[in-house]
Amino acid sequence: MNAEIITIGDEILIGQIVDTNSQFIGQQLNKIGVSVYQITSIQDDKQHILNALKEAQERVDIVIITGGLGPTKDDITKKTIAEFFNDDKLIEYPEVIEHIKGLFQKINHPFKEIQRYQAQLPSKATLLQNDFGTAPGMWFYENNTVFVSLPGVPYEMKGLITSQVLPKIQQQFKLPFIIHKTIMTYGAGESTIAERIEDFENNLPSHIKLAYLPSFGKVRLRLSAKGENKEVLEKALNDKVSEVYELLPEIITGLDDDSSLEKRVGELLKKNSKTICTAESVTGGKIAATLVSVAGSSSYYKGGFVAYSAETKINLLGVCPETIKKHTVVSKEVAIEMAKGAKERLKTNYAIAVTGNAGPTTDDTDKSVGIVYIALVADNEVFVGEFDFGQPREKVINRTVSKALEILQKQIL
Amino acid sequence: MNAEIITIGDEILIGQIVDTNSQFIGQQLNKIGVSVYQITSIQDDKQHILNALKEAQERVDIVIITGGLGPTKDDITKKTIAEFFNDDKLIEYPEVIEHIKGLFQKINHPFKEIQRYQAQLPSKATLLQNDFGTAPGMWFYENNTVFVSLPGVPYEMKGLITSQVLPKIQQQFKLPFIIHKTIMTYGAGESTIAERIEDFENNLPSHIKLAYLPSFGKVRLRLSAKGENKEVLEKALNDKVSEVYELLPEIITGLDDDSSLEKRVGELLKKNSKTICTAESVTGGKIAATLVSVAGSSSYYKGGFVAYSAETKINLLGVCPETIKKHTVVSKEVAIEMAKGAKERLKTNYAIAVTGNAGPTTDDTDKSVGIVYIALVADNEVFVGEFDFGQPREKVINRTVSKALEILQKQIL
Repeated sequence: MNAEIITIGDEILIGQIVDTNSQFIGQQLNKIGVSVYQITSIQDDKQHILNALKEAQERVDIVIITGGLGPTKDDITKKTIAEFFNDDKLIEYPEVIEHIKGLFQKINHPFKEIQRYQAQLPSKATLLQNDFGTAPGMWFYENNTVFVSLPGVPYEMKGLITSQVLPKIQQQFKLPFIIHKTIMTYGAGESTIAERIEDFENNLPSHIKLAYLPSFGKVRLRLSAKGENKEVLEKALNDKVSEVYELLPEIITGLDDDSSLEKRVGELLKKNSKTICTAESVTGGKIAATLVSVAGSSSYYKGGFVAYSAETKINLLGVCPETIKKHTVVSKEVAIEMAKGAKERLKTNYAIAVTGNAGPTTDDTDKSVGIVYIALVADNEVFVGEFDFGQPREKVINRTVSKALEILQKQIL
Repeated sequence: MNAEIITIGDEILIGQIVDTNSQFIGQQLNKIGVSVYQITSIQDDKQHILNALKEAQERVDIVIITGGLGPTKDDITKKTIAEFFNDDKLIEYPEVIEHIKGLFQKINHPFKEIQRYQAQLPSKATLLQNDFGTAPGMWFYENNTVFVSLPGVPYEMKGLITSQVLPKIQQQFKLPFIIHKTIMTYGAGESTIAERIEDFENNLPSHIKLAYLPSFGKVRLRLSAKGENKEVLEKALNDKVSEVYELLPEIITGLDDDSSLEKRVGELLKKNSKTICTAESVTGGKIAATLVSVAGSSSYYKGGFVAYSAETKINLLGVCPETIKKHTVVSKEVAIEMAKGAKERLKTNYAIAVTGNAGPTTDDTDKSVGIVYIALVADNEVFVGEFDFGQPREKVINRTVSKALEILQKQIL
């Protein structure tokens, strides 16, 4: 079963926002065995929407459309879909009017007549009630194709997908299983790996696909399998994973299992009943924020410092002014003293500290832009590393965050 | 001049990554007067790529393709583009081989023969040298359409777009100007605004478009104009902006000017020679990280605390244990004491503090999930607000960060 996602909105095309809706929908469809064949982002333009619907109908079985369902003039999706289905009869849903009135009452806004249009759907539509906003979703089934139209506001769209769209798709179609396993490797490039697993790759059966996902000194290898029988599929995929493990024993660090590095670090800390704190300069709190993004992180993450100026490093973390004078703020020595200072103050098992230069200028240090020091202090050992993360600023910050989490994971293991 | 962006890679379609490349390319093309007509994300599949190229050629003048240029088997873009142009002759570029050898030498890896293929381009291609990686970009001009193929690694793609693709497009085509102005409004819904500016909207000339971008209690109104004469266009758009200002005087907070809230806050602090620090619980450092994401933030951002546990709030920020006992950690009182504690310790003009419950469980407080308190302490005043940011966790954290920055901006003004 193939699907296409159509996101409507000029704000995506001019780059004012990133289209995160498609990612969410792609993940969710995949989990229930629907392959996303294509994602198409188009303008708020009638003819363009009509063309995209027609093309999608020829390509796939399920078309999911987001955006353009608001009450204003530039929201033309509903009208256009009605035209696409030659359906010029609108039906008003009293339960939707009640729901909208309730939402407006909650924020002390009067109900406007313009909102009534939100409660009117083309006669061929099945209502998908939107618990989180005013624009309902719509479900159409025409010429063996399902069309689903959803609002573009991410949490409204997510609510509708999870509670209504996925169950209805599972009811409508008999779906295969799609399984992915992602193997993480560190320290070898894409081409080196490709040479070492060339025979393996050439002999893969047609229902199993291999993809290379390189980034920042690591390459993830994703194996995907599709089939009718979940157990058979799981077994086949696990066998292939074992083969890759045998071919690349020293560079594989584990399976990704769709869980992020911060989640895995969190699980490791929890399992070992260890706690951690942070002391950040160059990343300005982003390591802390990444750790805290995991639900339940309060059981191992105690807190941290953002010590952005030299002064703050001295006052908050007890870094010795002499150390800064001798080595500058961007140095191994300062990173270690920051970690030790944080660990002492927050009484944790681990403390991770970073100091570096994200640019664009080099300020009060002799180190060039991109140089970062990461220190990890544990109860009885100290690790410190120097890294060159290049440019620009955003990349230096992001690479520092992932490298810090990587070091943490390695050290806990 | 219209463009289409084609991003190739199963990882986008299964939702393993968000397609941020398209956003960047969309922004950049827009700035030089090229409209992005469509963004299409497709599978690593020969026939699918061929179809997408053909369809795009019929729709637009410029096709930008990213992804699938690596050295491994799943990277089929180059081969497929060659087939699309009936171009079976590969030409090897010695300067690319030298460049790749240099990159490998830098990280002490031997040059592999598999890499040689990276230096070979179809004979119809113009080389776009990639300074940041091994896969060069390619430029084709066939049947009045420009095709550009770029690697999918974001910073390699960005480097090529900025240094080579944009200048070449400007050289090839006579381009119009596209200008956007975005007006920020707070406190009125999309439908209320639409009613109040209905006449204005109906009377807009055809070369000026209006879009509503609602999010979290604010609505941005984007006016876009396209034309040949930059000054005439600027004037027309400024006139329209003034009209909107007159129609919605009390809800407009300013122009967006494409600059983010954190940038504007930074500029305000710099202009007024004020400094700031942070004390975060629920956001775990994300407010700090957002402030620090702005280049030059070290001149006003001094540092901050991530006080995730009650214990840390007491020990690091001097929050009174009695206050926590009486009001729980999620309370106005604790937010204010956190801000005061941070301000005292970091000697800044402003301190912003947040405490709240991001869920999924309610832990050691009587407040429900989604409740957040934000306190801002200035030299001679204290602001504190209660907010209900709903669910889930990610939304609570993100809305807290933007609300905190919004409060900050308002107070400084």
